This record gives sequence, structure tokens and C-alpha cells, in this order.
Amino acid sequence: MSVAKVIELTASSSKSIEDAVENGIERANETLDEVEGVWVQDIKAIVKDGKVTEWRVNMKVTFLLKG
Amino acid sequence: MSVAKVIELTASSSKSIEDAVENGIERANETLDEVEGVWVQDIKAIVKDGKVTEWRVNMKVTFLLKG
Amino acid sequence: MSVAKVIELTASSSKSIEDAVENGIERANETLDEVEGVWVQDIKAIVKDGKVTEWRVNMKVTFLLKG
Amino acid sequence: MSVAKVIELTASSSKSIEDAVENGIERANETLDEVEGVWVQDIKAIVKDGKVTEWRVNMKVTFLLKG
Amino acid sequence: MSVAKVIELTASSSKSIEDAVENGIERANETLDEVEGVWVQDIKAIVKDGKVTEWRVNMKVTFLLKG
Amino acid sequence: MSVAKVIELTASSSKSIEDAVENGIERANETLDEVEGVWVQDIKAIVKDGKVTEWRVNMKVTFLLKG
Amino acid sequence: MSVAKVIELTASSSKSIEDAVENGIERANETLDEVEGVWVQDIKAIVKDGKVTEWRVNMKVTFLLKG
Amino acid sequence: MSVAKVIELTASSSKSIEDAVENGIERANETLDEVEGVWVQDIKAIVKDGKVTEWRVNMKVTFLLKG
Amino acid sequence: MSVAKVIELTASSSKSIEDAVENGIERANETLDEVEGVWVQDIKAIVKDGKVTEWRVNMKVTFLLKG
Amino acid sequence: MSVAKVIELTASSSKSIEDAVENGIERANETLDEVEGVWVQDIKAIVKDGKVTEWRVNMKVTFLLKG
Amino acid sequence: MSVAKVIELTASSSKSIEDAVENGIERANETLDEVEGVWVQDIKAIVKDGKVTEWRVNMKVTFLLKG
Amino acid sequence: MSVAKVIELTASSSKSIEDAVENGIERANETLDEVEGVWVQDIKAIVKDGKVTEWRVNMKVTFLLKG
Repeated sequence: MSVAKVIELTASSSKSIEDAVENGIERANETLDEVEGVWVQDIKAIVKDGKVTEWRVNMKVTFLLKG
Repeated sequence: MSVAKVIELTASSSKSIEDAVENGIERANETLDEVEGVWVQDIKAIVKDGKVTEWRVNMKVTFLLKG
Repeated sequence: MSVAKVIELTASSSKSIEDAVENGIERANETLDEVEGVWVQDIKAIVKDGKVTEWRVNMKVTFLLKG
Repeated sequence: MSVAKVIELTASSSKSIEDAVENGIERANETLDEVEGVWVQDIKAIVKDGKVTEWRVNMKVTFLLKG
Repeated sequence: MSVAKVIELTASSSKSIEDAVENGIERANETLDEVEGVWVQDIKAIVKDGKVTEWRVNMKVTFLLKG
Repeated sequence: MSVAKVIELTASSSKSIEDAVENGIERANETLDEVEGVWVQDIKAIVKDGKVTEWRVNMKVTFLLKG
Repeated sequence: MSVAKVIELTASSSKSIEDAVENGIERANETLDEVEGVWVQDIKAIVKDGKVTEWRVNMKVTFLLKG
Repeated sequence: MSVAKVIELTASSSKSIEDAVENGIERANETLDEVEGVWVQDIKAIVKDGKVTEWRVNMKVTFLLKG
Repeated sequence: MSVAKVIELTASSSKSIEDAVENGIERANETLDEVEGVWVQDIKAIVKDGKVTEWRVNMKVTFLLKG
Repeated sequence: MSVAKVIELTASSSKSIEDAVENGIERANETLDEVEGVWVQDIKAIVKDGKVTEWRVNMKVTFLLKG
Repeated sequence: MSVAKVIELTASSSKSIEDAVENGIERANETLDEVEGVWVQDIKAIVKDGKVTEWRVNMKVTFLLKG
Repeated sequence: MSVAKVIELTASSSKSIEDAVENGIERANETLDEVEGVWVQDIKAIVKDGKVTEWRVNMKVTFLLKG
């Protein structure tokens, strides 16, 4: 019997959508050690003076619960 | 790099929808100190003898994860 | 074995969203006597001359079917 | 043949959900004169120091296009 | 004022959908003691050599937060 | 010209999801005699002391309206 | 205070989508006398020997509840 | 680099769903000259005395923004 | 044990929504001989010089798989 | 680089929801040999004389495409 | 009282999803000067001869309405 | 009369979301020669040891059916 927990995070990056996802995973790894995957729910961009300053991704992060 | 976590709560009030949301935030504040915002997902009313006894709100609460 | 029926109503009020819900419940109570709860599906406002004249709520009303 | 246009606004209020909707309608009325109604799509609350400082409503506003 | 928290789990069973839900509740009970209910969001089956080896259920678990 | 009506019920069973659906159909049959089918919309489980006490199914029931 | 009820019907026609909707309204009118409007939820076509034999429309029918 | 804008209209016709869409496009063409297409979002019928008096279509209209 | 397969098609017609659906079924019939039905998912109109040149329907087509 | 294809089936069983899913997989296996998993999209029951005669499941079936 | 307007654009790029979003913002900036953010609704790719020639993004653009 | 077929694929890449889409198109091109476009439905990331090892995209691929 394996059970996984799913948490929701919002992470951001000035570089790209992929980098925002990786920032969220990196932060989740500080407290969780069995992150299995991520589902990207929503993609936003924050704009200042006509430029994207931040790619912001809302995501579901799945990690295994130990025994 | 900022990362926010999103949790889901259901809170209620006998007074109003807004009061139910505020009750949920008040409870979240006991353990979290950087609540940024709330998204109201669902609004229900519990009825007894033809009267609303409880406004019940399901909500997503966003708070900043510290560095 | 308990079975509940769910009906859909649209009710309105000039005062507030909560009052529109309560108007719908009051009307349902005239013919049903075991209303348990309400789920607010949609909230609209009718506008005349730049003022809200009516808060209109579409809702699902749940009531117990007797034995 | 009547045709209505639908625009999307986000408006806010420190008081209530209903007041946020009315603020959005008031602003729409400055440039449009036949607002017919509003559909509330999303309800959020902005939180500072554990208190709701702003009720923020995303809404679709419908107004008649003249002949 | 009662407030409930909602968490998301994915649990599995080789036997049935119902058994997968019960496995998820059993695991949640190890750390939470007031589980009230479960909403089944998604049902999947993992297949090997043409046979279902695992029923996998994604679910929202609601539990009361103590005063 | 055939017309069918669709009603919404919530029924439950301590045994299984299938049994909850059959309980809802049984109750519908007391007053309707041409039930054609059921669409399962939502599946929930009520939990007490870490055990599922009730499988609760929300469903749409379709039945033929006579001529 | 006006309250409207919403019921769900499935009606069909061998001619067109519009005719299927009108058949549903005609049937609803036999028992209800204040039908206000219809929302078309789903459109299907039944096919036999490569030809559409029936346009089948699932719809929500709104009617006023008297006083 | 081509950019298109999408606006939302509600248009109606006493004749058919297709005619309601064409009425909306005709009105849009009075102020826009590069309408590319329409996506039908919602179909309603307004009913008086048991007859459809109006087919009402909510639609997204896409048109090219000039360089 | 009967199993049906569901495929997705987009078909079009210069005449009407119904005709676009029938064009899709006609094409499906060239390779499949047990089409049972169609579910209309999306309706679009392609516009040139302010006129609808094409009704385009996205649809799910269901056909029986033989034993 | 791995690519999987997803097809949609509707399968049924007189016994249970799980058995309907397994019937769909069994049929898919006759022509495909790398079925990986199934996502249950919709659950229906066909009713005759007040009894469920068929559990009918609409599902997405995923299988690996070979190199 | 702040009110923001939300418009819908579709923009494209031959390079990447992020570049398509930035092209849409750049175009919006020609007529609007307070773009705050973008929500990516849909991502498509146009294909010619087996290659992606265009990443096409549908997005909601939010900008502040002045006092 | 043109008819297009829509199939669903899941493709992946260790590099980027765009590359995963292109891998799916490349594979589709081995058996189909008129791919017109792709709609990205879902974006996931597979994680091992805190790093994204695979961007996995679920997509609908549209291609023209000949004559």
C-alpha cells in the first residue's frame, strides 16, 4: 500500500516557465525528500513597464508518504 | 525566488459569507504568519427549520514560505 | 438508507447575496419540510441606471426524502 | 436585433463582496451607459497582518450596444 | 466557529476502488485524528500485461482543526 | 417526440459505491416507473473513527415522461 | 421577491437542434405555465446506418414559481 | 508577429442559432474590419407563452489587431 | 460485454451546424460501419469579409467495436 | 524519447464498476500490447425495471507507442 | 477604489511560449500603459511539414483603469 | 467538405516544454502526413532526487483526413 500526498505551491522565476517550476521543486525539497512529480495548473506573468518581470506558476507537487 | 504555499480550508459563520472567510483566516493565522490572500471556491448554507444556521465557505489560503 | 433530493432554484433580493439565498430557502420551505442545505452556484447582479437593483443567486437546494 | 457586449473587470472594496461589485459597476458607468447586469466569476480576499484589507471580485459586465 | 482543513492524497489498492479510498484514510489517521470525510476526485487503474495491478484514487480528505 | 426528465439525488450505503447507486434508484422507483439510467456525478465517503461508515453518491437520474 | 425553479430535460427531434429544444418546451408547458427560458447544455446526434435519426438536446428549463 | 483580440458578445435572433451568430458578427463588423471567427460559448432560448421568441447566443469574436 | 470506441473529429459546412455534424458522420462512415452517435463539443464559425463562410463543429463520434 | 497514445473507450459490465474497466482493458489488449493505464472519466448505470442491468464506464486508455 | 480591466488576446511567436506571451504584452502596451499581468489560458502550436512554425498563446491581460 | 481528426498523445523531453511538444509531433509524423496543429492540454514534470528529469506534455494533435 503506497500513499502519496499532494501539496499546492506557487513559485516564480524571471527566466522561464520551466525555471519557475524548478524553483518550486527546489523549495519543496528542503522539507520533503521524495518528490515524485509536478502538475502545472496555471501560468501567469507579472508585468512592469511593459516587460515580464516574473513567470509565476501554480503547481501541484506529489511526494511519497513513508510507510 | 519567492515560493508561496496554498492550503484548503472550510470555515463557517452564522452571520455572513465574509465573516466565514475571516474566521478561516483567523484560524490559519494561529499557525502561519504570512497569509497573503484567500480565494473563495465554494459557498454553502446549512439550513435547520427553514433558517440558515451556518454560512460555510471552502477556500484556498495562500501564504509565503520563508526563504 | 437515506436519500436526499437536490433541486435548482434562482432567487433574488435587493439587499444582499445572503438575503437572496434566504429568500430561496423560504420559498422552498412552503412545499418541502426537510431542507438541509444550499450550494450557491452562481451570483449575478441586475443593474438599472448604474445601480444594483437585484442580487440574483442560482442555487442547489438539498432536502431529505422521507422513508 | 439586440446585441450586448460583455467585458471583464476586477474591482475591490474594504467593506464587502457586494460593495466590490458596486464599485466595478460605478467605474463601468463612467464610460458606458447601458449596463444591464453583472456575473460574479471569482471572489478573493487580500490579507495583511491577519485581516482582510480588500474584497476583490472578478466579474463579467454586460451592456447593450446601441443600434 | 469550526474550521476544517482539506488535504489531497493519492492512495491505491490491488482490490477495488473502495479499498484504495480506505487505504488513504488509514494512512491519514496515523497523523490526524478527526477525519470527517473524503471526496473522490479521480479514479485510475495501473495496467501490467493486460491486467489491472492497482486501483489508484486521488482524493480530498477533510478533518477538523481543533479549537 | 420523446422527452426525458433528469433529477438529482444523493444516496448512500455502508457497503459500496454500486450499492449506494442502487439505493438511489430503488427510492426513485417508488414514485417514478420509467427510470432509464443514472450518471454518477460525485463520490464521497463519510468517516467515523477512521472507518468509512457511508459511501455517498450524488447522481443524475433520467426517466421518460409519458406522452 | 421572485423565485424561479430550474428543471433538466432531454428532448429530441428528427429535424434540427432548434426543433428539439421546442419539443422540450412544448412538453414542459403541459404541466408548467410560466416557462421563461431554456439553456442548452449538451447537443447529441443519434446515428443509424450512417444517418442522423435524432437530434437530442439536454437543457435546463427555467420557470417562475407563483407567489 | 500577429496578435488577435477576442471580445465577448451576446446576440439574438427569432429564427435560429445560426442567425443569432450572424447578427452578432454583423454588429461587430460595424466597428471592426478583420473579424476572423467566432466561438459559440452558450446557447439559450427566451420563451413567451410556450414559444421560443428569441435564440440568444453568447460568443467570443476574434479579430486581427493591425500591426 | 460490449465495448465502444470514441474518436474526435472536426467537420465543417457552409450551410448549418447540423450539416457540419452530418459531414463528419459521412466521413467517419467511410472507414467505420457501426457509428452509434455523436456528441457536439464545440461550435465555431469562420468569418471572411463579415460573412460566415464555414460552420465548424468539434465532435466525439462513438462506434461499436466488434466482438 | 517516449510517446504514449491515449484512446477513449466505453465499456460495460453487469457486475461492478471495476469489472467494466477490466472489460475495456481486455478489449484494448486484443489490438494493443502495451496498455499502461486507464483514467475513469464517467460512470453511468443503465436501469431496466428498477434494477441496474449494466455499469457503463467511459475511460481514457494510455499505451506506449513503440520507437 | 481600484478597478482593473481584463482583455483577451491571442499572440504568437516562432521561438517559444514565453516569447509569444511577450509579443502579446508588447502589442497591448501600444495602447495601454498600466499592464499588470497576464494569465496564460491556452497553448497551441501550428505545424507545417512536421515542424512547429508558431507557438500561439491565448491570454487574459489585466491593466489598471485610471481613477 | 474538410474533416480533421484529433488524437491525444503524451510526449516528453528532458529539455523543455516546447521540446516535449515537438517530440510528440515528430512521432505523429511517422504515420500521419498532414498534422496541422497541437493543443497543449496538460504539463507535468517528473522529478528524481529533486531535479526535473522529464517534461511531460499531454496534447491533442489535429490532422486532415484526405478526401
